[in-house]
Amino acid sequence: MRQNYKMIVCYDGTRYSGWQKQKETENTIQGKLETVLGRMADTTVEVTGSGRTDAGVHAYGQTANFFLEKDGTHAGRTPEGLREYLNTYLPEDIAVRSVEETGQRFHSRYSAVGKIYRYTIGKEKSADVFRRRYVFPYYAFAASQGGISGAKLCIDDMRKAAADLTGSHDFKSFCGNKHMKKSTVRTIRSITVKETKETISIDFEGDGFLPYMVRIMAGTLIEIGNGSRERGSIPGILESHDRQAAGITAPASGLMLMEVLY
Amino acid sequence: MRQNYKMIVCYDGTRYSGWQKQKETENTIQGKLETVLGRMADTTVEVTGSGRTDAGVHAYGQTANFFLEKDGTHAGRTPEGLREYLNTYLPEDIAVRSVEETGQRFHSRYSAVGKIYRYTIGKEKSADVFRRRYVFPYYAFAASQGGISGAKLCIDDMRKAAADLTGSHDFKSFCGNKHMKKSTVRTIRSITVKETKETISIDFEGDGFLPYMVRIMAGTLIEIGNGSRERGSIPGILESHDRQAAGITAPASGLMLMEVLY
Repeated sequence: MRQNYKMIVCYDGTRYSGWQKQKETENTIQGKLETVLGRMADTTVEVTGSGRTDAGVHAYGQTANFFLEKDGTHAGRTPEGLREYLNTYLPEDIAVRSVEETGQRFHSRYSAVGKIYRYTIGKEKSADVFRRRYVFPYYAFAASQGGISGAKLCIDDMRKAAADLTGSHDFKSFCGNKHMKKSTVRTIRSITVKETKETISIDFEGDGFLPYMVRIMAGTLIEIGNGSRERGSIPGILESHDRQAAGITAPASGLMLMEVLY
Repeated sequence: MRQNYKMIVCYDGTRYSGWQKQKETENTIQGKLETVLGRMADTTVEVTGSGRTDAGVHAYGQTANFFLEKDGTHAGRTPEGLREYLNTYLPEDIAVRSVEETGQRFHSRYSAVGKIYRYTIGKEKSADVFRRRYVFPYYAFAASQGGISGAKLCIDDMRKAAADLTGSHDFKSFCGNKHMKKSTVRTIRSITVKETKETISIDFEGDGFLPYMVRIMAGTLIEIGNGSRERGSIPGILESHDRQAAGITAPASGLMLMEVLY
């Protein structure tokens, strides 16, 4: 008999090649989790995530599940005991927030009904040394590269454009994978732009997201915010079905998977 | 003629041997600043800080000053130009927040009338991967080491004890340097304990602080908070003039120099 476990995982993606296990590198979050669980259970343990996160992308609430034999070497470990075991052996930039027993049919990817991603833009003119790993230092970048207009971001324009992205649309123009064969229709339930003294954050909640979709939406909203793109341009970009019509892919450092909804 | 410049510097102290230049290592904040300024000015530039911060301690608002010849190779650089030059060549965990021209007699250490330090305790049971470099992960530490009682910190007891530390006292019991020959009398103007969902922070404002004094005060307040020490014990510790009577030296990672007052 096997028990299915659901866990919520938090990680600083800076030094990883993303969530998904790869043949070429062991340096992935899934790989680290499977190594620690495999050592504990003395057998191969497969960890299924809610979806991939790309290299350098962070997670506050990635969700994953795995099965353990009920009479395995981990026998007697409670879910809390499993959590402590994992946190003892995982590197310090990966932490398991919770482990709980779940039903046999729970599947982190197929059972998910939505996800919330946050894209964070740092407002400091020079890179903020404490936030630098978790934001896109837009103003510092604009000042040093001159590649993006250095103009202050207009939150109002970003909010108006964000409203045009919400709803059900074919997001092919916002898909980073040119050879996507499956449907590129997704539903975005809400986009919330918030400004604090130090950051601008954009929360995207939707039923699912295409490869690089959040970062391309964030990049496009930044270009609208700095005036290098019209605030009414979103409907035209969506209709074009052309990746070239949308904005830049904003850097991975600013992106965090906040929560997977079930 | 030489111009005196005042700058405010922000750093993540994690990978440095502290603020102060040392013969054995170049890995100090002062050393990095002097190297970059020296290369720019094509001569030795001495950077004077408001005081040392120890290895691993961070700063949001360390203040320092330096002199440049008015006809040096940097000629024509405005204070803002100096700031940009420094931020271009400094490592990404050191940033200069501001540079301004100041009077000949301004001295970062002697002109200071006070300092504000913040000690931050992380409340998460497992280490918070995003805050881990800037907090003392007390609960995770207590759970893993068993060295400190795992009891929840009582903020009320910590505040009461903090009140006994404020005012002018001989802080010899809170001085990490056994061979301190100068006066160990200091005035603490205020200690503010704040709690959020994720952290407990303690702000110390005083006219000056002895070596390790903030970390020993923080360690003692933590021991009072978890009940391993009486909340009325501060007056006795102060009177003893004995370092052994006070609590542990809390880890460097939780300490940040917030502001130097002039």
